Amino acid sequence: MKIVIDAFGGDNAPVEIIRGAAMAKSRFDCELALTGDIETVKKAAAENGIDISDIELIGAASVMDMHDEARLVVKSKRDSSMGVGLDLVADGAADAFVSAGPTGALLMGATMIVKRIKGIKRPALGAVLPTLTSNTILIDCGANAECRPEMLAQFGMMGSLYMQYVMNKENPIVGLANNGAEDSKGTELQKAAYAILKADSGLNFFGNVEGRDIPMGVSDVVVTDGFTGNLILKTIEGMGSAIGKKLKSALMTNTVTKLSALMLKPTLKDFAASMDYSSFGGAPFIGLTKPVIKAHGSSGASAICSAVRQAIDWSSADVTQAITEHLSGVSEEE
Amino acid sequence: MKIVIDAFGGDNAPVEIIRGAAMAKSRFDCELALTGDIETVKKAAAENGIDISDIELIGAASVMDMHDEARLVVKSKRDSSMGVGLDLVADGAADAFVSAGPTGALLMGATMIVKRIKGIKRPALGAVLPTLTSNTILIDCGANAECRPEMLAQFGMMGSLYMQYVMNKENPIVGLANNGAEDSKGTELQKAAYAILKADSGLNFFGNVEGRDIPMGVSDVVVTDGFTGNLILKTIEGMGSAIGKKLKSALMTNTVTKLSALMLKPTLKDFAASMDYSSFGGAPFIGLTKPVIKAHGSSGASAICSAVRQAIDWSSADVTQAITEHLSGVSEEE
Repeated sequence: MKIVIDAFGGDNAPVEIIRGAAMAKSRFDCELALTGDIETVKKAAAENGIDISDIELIGAASVMDMHDEARLVVKSKRDSSMGVGLDLVADGAADAFVSAGPTGALLMGATMIVKRIKGIKRPALGAVLPTLTSNTILIDCGANAECRPEMLAQFGMMGSLYMQYVMNKENPIVGLANNGAEDSKGTELQKAAYAILKADSGLNFFGNVEGRDIPMGVSDVVVTDGFTGNLILKTIEGMGSAIGKKLKSALMTNTVTKLSALMLKPTLKDFAASMDYSSFGGAPFIGLTKPVIKAHGSSGASAICSAVRQAIDWSSADVTQAITEHLSGVSEEE
Repeated sequence: MKIVIDAFGGDNAPVEIIRGAAMAKSRFDCELALTGDIETVKKAAAENGIDISDIELIGAASVMDMHDEARLVVKSKRDSSMGVGLDLVADGAADAFVSAGPTGALLMGATMIVKRIKGIKRPALGAVLPTLTSNTILIDCGANAECRPEMLAQFGMMGSLYMQYVMNKENPIVGLANNGAEDSKGTELQKAAYAILKADSGLNFFGNVEGRDIPMGVSDVVVTDGFTGNLILKTIEGMGSAIGKKLKSALMTNTVTKLSALMLKPTLKDFAASMDYSSFGGAPFIGLTKPVIKAHGSSGASAICSAVRQAIDWSSADVTQAITEHLSGVSEEE
């Protein structure tokens, strides 16, 4: 198995990306490749004492900048570290692609170059979030701001199969994010999507889930349009960060709290890590013929390493096949 | 000034509501009245040792149940503790109404009985939330699931005037909840609302705010449709609750953590209180001729007491007048 990583995507590229790739190489049994300017990668690795001797370096002449128009990755910047990576996966030379580069460009590039699974209306960005009890996938969390009901229904199916095949969750519970628990809640979009999800016998559809149910882990899949999903995801990130800061300042109140905080250091460190919702690997872009993972723009080495592990798990599981089978089952039923 | 409280609204009615009213009476200088079955209120107060001698009791023959259709409050259940309270405010016999009863019924009843300010398309539910630095009003957080751009623009104006007049915030910063910071983000609704908000010279419009900006306190007002707002609000509540539970269990790990937690008890108690996002008074229903406050369904005595204080602050401030003036200013400009 070979995973390709965009060495020039994100705020901390290339050093943290290279460091994350080296970390992944030392931990997981798979081939890794980095795309980008080879001399710059070699120099950054040498200067920072990162061993990349077992990682393949694949040349790319440019970089997708966050100010670039997304569509450039398909055309004039096809030679970018992102475009080259996507082409490698599309051509079958690699199994999955990880990038912390600009979201819009990655989604458009992946859709145009790696291409959708036949029958999938729109690929969707999932975010696997820790909950009080386990974890849940929020899908779509940003790829499709405006959705039709059938798209939401497909997001539910794709999220369910991802949780089952990649996260090993048996018979995942699927919830529809809504402004109330009753069947009749939501806008026309939710009402119509509810009916389609409920009618799908291949899904373990729970019904509507409210905002507070998401961090509590009421369902394993939370289905939503990309506009609402993006706001939910980032609100969760912001709450984690704001509460972490509040706790830190509360513990600095006086000598007693400072002493106690010192005694609690390892516990609080674990706790703080569990609140950093931006560090949980990457967001799988589901519905394409091959795995593409969007790592957070602020990813450090360990987030990149997590994203690579996720890419390996995803590539090992036969999700694409399962989605294809589900789609043919649905069309046979129709 | 007289504030009327629905004695039979919410999960903890009537005892906690009566207790909250008595708490408010002892703290604030204003007249209070409770609506509901007088004998039941007297009995509950006596059994729980609550002094209600200075609180007026106003009889109401029925109660709006959470399973009742919302419109009943206007017709066959006009004699409910909610309907009677709304009529008192509409008739000018009281200045503001507080209820922890069913949201749908309260919103419909308030709109039909207390009525909208002339020119307001739709009243909106605000939620004043603590942020890392201060607080912010999320508006609409649940009254209008489907919105038009002009409605969102009015929510921004009403939220801004509420923060200015009731929360004493000078020149409040208004943000539009969106799936990205750039001007071009969002669905057609956000794009159109953005243009109207930006053109309103009476507003301190910041531009788009993302989910993570909300708990960080980037803006004093967060404008959103009621569907998205409800999901954001409840996600914030759920995160507060989930993180509080996580921290509690982390502190129970071993003897050292338990000891430290004991030393930190007062600090952690304050911290836990600051995480209970459901206890911050009530949600003002803005755009009506008189103040109506929706208290959380799970309100205990102190939440009711906070909601009463909010009703007093709101009644003392001339928000209705300010909204009316803003509306006439806008129509003159047109």
